[in-house]
Amino acid sequence: MANIIILGAGVMGSALAVPLADRGHKVRLIGTHLDDDIIAAIRRHDIHPRLKVHLPDSVLPGSPDELAEAVGGAELLVLGVSSAGVDWAAGKLTSVLPPDVPIVMVTKGLAGDGETIQTLPEYLEKRLGATYRGDVCAIGGPSIASELAVRRPTCVTLAGRSGPAAHRLAEWFRTPYYHVWPDTNLVGVEVCAALKNLYALGVGMAAGMLESAPAVENESGMHNTAAALFAEAVWEMSYMVTALGGDPQAVWTLAGGGDLYVTCQAGRNSRMGRWLGKGMRYSEAKLRYMPEDVVEGAETALAIRASLSAMITRGELDRNSLPMLCAIVEAVCDDACRPIPLERFFAARGTERPNDFAAGLS
Amino acid sequence: MANIIILGAGVMGSALAVPLADRGHKVRLIGTHLDDDIIAAIRRHDIHPRLKVHLPDSVLPGSPDELAEAVGGAELLVLGVSSAGVDWAAGKLTSVLPPDVPIVMVTKGLAGDGETIQTLPEYLEKRLGATYRGDVCAIGGPSIASELAVRRPTCVTLAGRSGPAAHRLAEWFRTPYYHVWPDTNLVGVEVCAALKNLYALGVGMAAGMLESAPAVENESGMHNTAAALFAEAVWEMSYMVTALGGDPQAVWTLAGGGDLYVTCQAGRNSRMGRWLGKGMRYSEAKLRYMPEDVVEGAETALAIRASLSAMITRGELDRNSLPMLCAIVEAVCDDACRPIPLERFFAARGTERPNDFAAGLS
Repeated sequence: MANIIILGAGVMGSALAVPLADRGHKVRLIGTHLDDDIIAAIRRHDIHPRLKVHLPDSVLPGSPDELAEAVGGAELLVLGVSSAGVDWAAGKLTSVLPPDVPIVMVTKGLAGDGETIQTLPEYLEKRLGATYRGDVCAIGGPSIASELAVRRPTCVTLAGRSGPAAHRLAEWFRTPYYHVWPDTNLVGVEVCAALKNLYALGVGMAAGMLESAPAVENESGMHNTAAALFAEAVWEMSYMVTALGGDPQAVWTLAGGGDLYVTCQAGRNSRMGRWLGKGMRYSEAKLRYMPEDVVEGAETALAIRASLSAMITRGELDRNSLPMLCAIVEAVCDDACRPIPLERFFAARGTERPNDFAAGLS
Repeated sequence: MANIIILGAGVMGSALAVPLADRGHKVRLIGTHLDDDIIAAIRRHDIHPRLKVHLPDSVLPGSPDELAEAVGGAELLVLGVSSAGVDWAAGKLTSVLPPDVPIVMVTKGLAGDGETIQTLPEYLEKRLGATYRGDVCAIGGPSIASELAVRRPTCVTLAGRSGPAAHRLAEWFRTPYYHVWPDTNLVGVEVCAALKNLYALGVGMAAGMLESAPAVENESGMHNTAAALFAEAVWEMSYMVTALGGDPQAVWTLAGGGDLYVTCQAGRNSRMGRWLGKGMRYSEAKLRYMPEDVVEGAETALAIRASLSAMITRGELDRNSLPMLCAIVEAVCDDACRPIPLERFFAARGTERPNDFAAGLS
């Protein structure tokens, strides 16, 4: 039994309280300043207003001003803030987090500084500074929070640079419904976890393409088109993981194909993809249909746009190997209104093996 | 422009007549003895009764007794019979097919002789005998026939042992809606193409598990579970491709992940999976709900059952690396009624790289 702090009471942070409480850990769920209504509901023993479930009674809710006291005795910090909240969290934690407490991030995204692309664990480590000596790990894989919160079965990867730390922490999370495998491929898992949102937006375009396509004799859909987009997504993810220093194996297990699969079944990224597939500009779709929604795939596109360009210009990424990524990024960031170039898929690399990609990068 | 014979007027063989005719080839579509009503409909310029579309007028329908005359002048034979029809086709072709005419198979399946597992192109080559010197190639990737027949966009791989042959034939098929990439990974593409049906049956079990699971507070589905099954399927496919002598790259492009994705969206394999996921025995589900249906994934399980056991016994395949495959094969072939062992997924290989699998196989 460990003392575990979850920072961020949104859907994913809160859902993780369930397996952790079921394992018998002492769990404190500390909301951010955006989570006040959620924490208030849990204090009243009401349902979590976004997960629509009662959390286990043993989960102790808390507000941001309790953070300093709480982390003092913590053996693990689970970071469940949104990607936009990482800077806030780093600022809060720097002065109060004991230097050896490991962190498990469930925040997903990539950080771009205009020149390079970093995973969020790398970014957070830099923000925490040299005095922090703990392991920053992350969980990837199919994890719709509302399903985890009611103990529906899933399988995930807990990745950290240190194998022993990943093994130990995976054991802390594992339950008969939450199957957790340790992995050392932190960069691979995190690149997949972030890009799957962006690519799910692309796969969702098939639904919009279908709606704007001419009627056909047998009323067929465009499932083949969606699947071709899915395959190119997986293919490009293997290129990106390799180029950013990870192991492409992440792509054909839980964090890549598995999480992309579930993300394509529904959700905000797919909805935005549908509008773009119909030929609508991103700015118009956002304003008219999704003004209040955080479309994570679009946020990731905006975060990496400048860095992606810089890396292509410097020859560190090959544009021809990323036709789908470039089309999505341009649709979101430049309001470009062009069809996805299926004819350029797979073509650049021919039948080369993915491990050969890296050889071509300078 | 080439003279092309398609043998088998089922949905896939017939659908391929569309891009081939659009490319200006002279296409003869020869039905098997099971296709008489289809060929008669095409002769009357009616719609194809299973595709529900009119084929292009330039496609010339024919009956089995026209085969000998037709293949005499052919530059390509497309084999579109069912996997159960490969022996029949080989028997028909042995005496009449000119020894240099290449074959492109769209028949999917694996051949088991109780000791080893062969891809259908390997099996067909043996059946055609040493006098046949042509290239046997195959097409893999997302290809719902009714969508291809109305020119909905998709991307596929045309794989052959000879790179130049695959390039030349891919060019013959390619249209602005049918994007065809040549590949030399014939074994990889064919193992994926066959196993995707079997694994789609497994992914479909999540729908049945959901129906028989207790009600939950927030009415969540089991999308995570389906995605975890999908990820394990891709993972095991990479193991099987490697073990059978192919390149696992096929798994994370069109023939593997792409085709599995589309196969999981609907169809007979998913329907059967749902019954098994609800806890029903295969024999009962088949008899009660799908007595007339060919469930391709189940056919593949039956075809490889004995060979799979023999290869595991000889240490050529590791049972611990194939928990999902073994569970599906046992459900279908032994009428076993057990839950899918999620807790054994991914575990056997830890964080090894897939290219290391082969080292463990004798």
